[in-house]
Amino acid sequence: MPGSASLGPEHPVSTPAQVDAALARAAEAAISFARQGGRVRGALLRRIAANIESGAEAIVERAGLETALPEARLRGELARTCGQLRLFAEMAEEGSWVDARIDLPDPHRAPMPKPDLRSMRRPLGPIAIFGASNFPLAFSVAGGDTASALAAGNPVVVKAHPAHPGTSALVGAAVGKAVDDAGLGAGTFAVLFDEGIELGLALVRDPRIKGVGFTGSRRAGRALMDEAAARREPVPVFAEMSSVNPVFVLAAALAARGPQIAAGLHASFTAGVGQFCTSPGIVFVESGAAGDAFVSRLAALAAATPAAPMLTPGIASAYRAGAEHLRAAGAREVAHGASGDGELGVAAVFEVDAEELLASPSLAEEVFGPSTLVARYAAAAVPLAFARTMEGNLTATLHAEESDLAAAGELIAALEGRVGRLILNGFPTGVEVCHAMVHGGPYPATSDGASTSVGTHAIERFTRLLCYQDFPDTALPKELQDANPLAILRMVDGRWVREAIATTTH
Amino acid sequence: MPGSASLGPEHPVSTPAQVDAALARAAEAAISFARQGGRVRGALLRRIAANIESGAEAIVERAGLETALPEARLRGELARTCGQLRLFAEMAEEGSWVDARIDLPDPHRAPMPKPDLRSMRRPLGPIAIFGASNFPLAFSVAGGDTASALAAGNPVVVKAHPAHPGTSALVGAAVGKAVDDAGLGAGTFAVLFDEGIELGLALVRDPRIKGVGFTGSRRAGRALMDEAAARREPVPVFAEMSSVNPVFVLAAALAARGPQIAAGLHASFTAGVGQFCTSPGIVFVESGAAGDAFVSRLAALAAATPAAPMLTPGIASAYRAGAEHLRAAGAREVAHGASGDGELGVAAVFEVDAEELLASPSLAEEVFGPSTLVARYAAAAVPLAFARTMEGNLTATLHAEESDLAAAGELIAALEGRVGRLILNGFPTGVEVCHAMVHGGPYPATSDGASTSVGTHAIERFTRLLCYQDFPDTALPKELQDANPLAILRMVDGRWVREAIATTTH
Repeated sequence: MPGSASLGPEHPVSTPAQVDAALARAAEAAISFARQGGRVRGALLRRIAANIESGAEAIVERAGLETALPEARLRGELARTCGQLRLFAEMAEEGSWVDARIDLPDPHRAPMPKPDLRSMRRPLGPIAIFGASNFPLAFSVAGGDTASALAAGNPVVVKAHPAHPGTSALVGAAVGKAVDDAGLGAGTFAVLFDEGIELGLALVRDPRIKGVGFTGSRRAGRALMDEAAARREPVPVFAEMSSVNPVFVLAAALAARGPQIAAGLHASFTAGVGQFCTSPGIVFVESGAAGDAFVSRLAALAAATPAAPMLTPGIASAYRAGAEHLRAAGAREVAHGASGDGELGVAAVFEVDAEELLASPSLAEEVFGPSTLVARYAAAAVPLAFARTMEGNLTATLHAEESDLAAAGELIAALEGRVGRLILNGFPTGVEVCHAMVHGGPYPATSDGASTSVGTHAIERFTRLLCYQDFPDTALPKELQDANPLAILRMVDGRWVREAIATTTH
Repeated sequence: MPGSASLGPEHPVSTPAQVDAALARAAEAAISFARQGGRVRGALLRRIAANIESGAEAIVERAGLETALPEARLRGELARTCGQLRLFAEMAEEGSWVDARIDLPDPHRAPMPKPDLRSMRRPLGPIAIFGASNFPLAFSVAGGDTASALAAGNPVVVKAHPAHPGTSALVGAAVGKAVDDAGLGAGTFAVLFDEGIELGLALVRDPRIKGVGFTGSRRAGRALMDEAAARREPVPVFAEMSSVNPVFVLAAALAARGPQIAAGLHASFTAGVGQFCTSPGIVFVESGAAGDAFVSRLAALAAATPAAPMLTPGIASAYRAGAEHLRAAGAREVAHGASGDGELGVAAVFEVDAEELLASPSLAEEVFGPSTLVARYAAAAVPLAFARTMEGNLTATLHAEESDLAAAGELIAALEGRVGRLILNGFPTGVEVCHAMVHGGPYPATSDGASTSVGTHAIERFTRLLCYQDFPDTALPKELQDANPLAILRMVDGRWVREAIATTTH
């Protein structure tokens, strides 16, 4: 991407003074924004979505120039981005996500009276969000991390990804205008630009930053985790980093529908030129004729795949290095697409004996790009051993008939402990934005396996619990008042209800 | 405490081989225990409580010898411990805590069919729990951390606190017998003994440990946080460490009921010889006659307080050093109780100009023991500045009349950002075990301000989210099956319901 070497005069690298000013404004805005109700936050998110839609033509054009992603993909991603903003707006407006809990008092309890206790989730304060290279809209300036952090009431300071500064500036202006029009403090949102790592590290080290959202490489994510953990006041980092998304094609499924699985798998690992976090990088297929036919089919599809531009020269170069590493570590390249120039991503299928994969963990490292590694096994104990010892992953996929499933109990149990999402007879790419989605998983898939960066659960990341003891109704947030004026679902004395509380003695 | 120098022949320090064996068994038990239903986990917790009650006489006697805590306190703590176990048993049995979410499929959606997605909380795996010195029962071998980790389906490996090894062994045997009687794997629970820090560090470093629970000093907690963050696969640490629990006595409240507040405050900071995490260590009182009278009252109460044995010689010595530090840093000791020998904790009241406190942050460090520091101020801007810049705390307390509250908006807003629990017209000691309790707060109060170590929210700490995509009903956990056989509260397509799902096409 030619523009990546210099941001150019329109988007100069933010100066330390600009960074400091943005953080000072964010810290100042934190208390007032935290006190805004869910309707105000929801309205802000809807304004942001509307402004992005108004500017869609310019945003898509600029993103196309900066990322080489096709227009249809970018239009789809813009729609998804606005959908995410509106989904979090709904969450904020409805309000039950704060997990309000009320334990009513008992002044007559012996030996000690029971106090009135009411708790809910509250925002953390200014959050640093890092734009991702591979989703210039949906995981960038106004992406899911920003939407969930704002929905929860946190000011956001975005570090734009240097691969798409112009897109980031356009979206940043759309957000800034929404903040202005909503009459919120200027510190509610800022976008900063740089070409290296210093600005991001400075954000994570700054005591005014209270949480971090990141999508990117394992190395960069780990560096941010380590910085945040080393602070005087450590803060949570929600980093989504690295995943090989293993696929297990079980015997009966292979026999019943090998060609269809191969076709679906090919579409999945080449989707977006393999630049999705959920791209399937390792596929377990049994040895023997059926498995051979599956690999041949996959090879033929890969060989016929046109090379395509990758997001940045750095990503293209890392992809070539990853493929070279697989070869050096003993994987056989069974097919690749027509070679293009050095900037293009060429689809490839590699094959290895699954026992070699178990013996050489470096073969199981993520190769970010349009390739997959087929691991051939003779005994089901081998993929089971892999599942038990593999690093954390965003997803694992099983292709299984009923008879396969009946025999796969141990495999499923092992995978349940190592991934965020288990898929049956589907493909891992295509992450639905909904309430039940988990785009998470143990390290190194994410820094915090308890969370998800896609779906409405993501709003919980940038919050903490706060309890009020014996506060009068008038001094409580609306979410915790007796009358339940927001009509949210609350746990009252252990029961989840939407009813108001009859006036108590407190 | 004489026994602390050597565990003695009954409770020898666990050998590396014993530690390794316990971890191997825990790792083996993790998958099967995770698959046990909530009723099995609930029954285990109830058996543990019953066994502790059966052994109450011996446990209380031994704990009295090891901790010097009075019998009535220990009997109360034993009852609380069993209450906690049964509360988590109820949570496990009822089952809704897993936060089950179901988004139903739509095979006809264009351009892509919508998959069937179902998610819930699942256990992490073996958890290392560190017994606390100051609660030999309620925060120790079978305390809240253990109860919540087991309730969520995690095997537990406890490192007993060396200040009460005999108590830990008795309670450990009660838990072990419950595990046996329930027919669960021996790896479900283990208790290990040591006299130093090596065993604990080894546990936190071990890749088989997937999470850590700790209550203790800031230094030890931070060391565990740093070890866990430096692992190849970092794991969450839930450490509850350090808190000065500031109290703000506002003007009208001081005028209306100064003597009662002083009496309550004295009872709170001397409760348990000041060895509670929520002991109020700093009290803001205005300058002038009413404030002087308040301090005199507090001083008279402290002077009349008998010295009392502390938990260990190390804690007594750290308390004396903390008081010495306050004096050296410029605080005036306005009163102390009758001096005892070096092993006893002597109540004390210190006083300082609040502006000096702001200028010397080391005055605001926790002194673990029966003292409090009164910070005198002339302008309300001074306590507000403290609230805005103070480190994270478990609690903050306001004493306020209605007129005070009306003027305290900024103070409350600042405190909301720095504590886990805000108390009005009460005292911070006495932590109710219930659904709405938050015994948490930003660092250094805890390592993870999003969580609580007391109350039912604590069960969420040792879990993560897992999503199943397009799994048939028979392969799903009961919590996610169409029929909702456990009748739990679930979010189905965004609505919280207990109803079953009509059979779908998946």
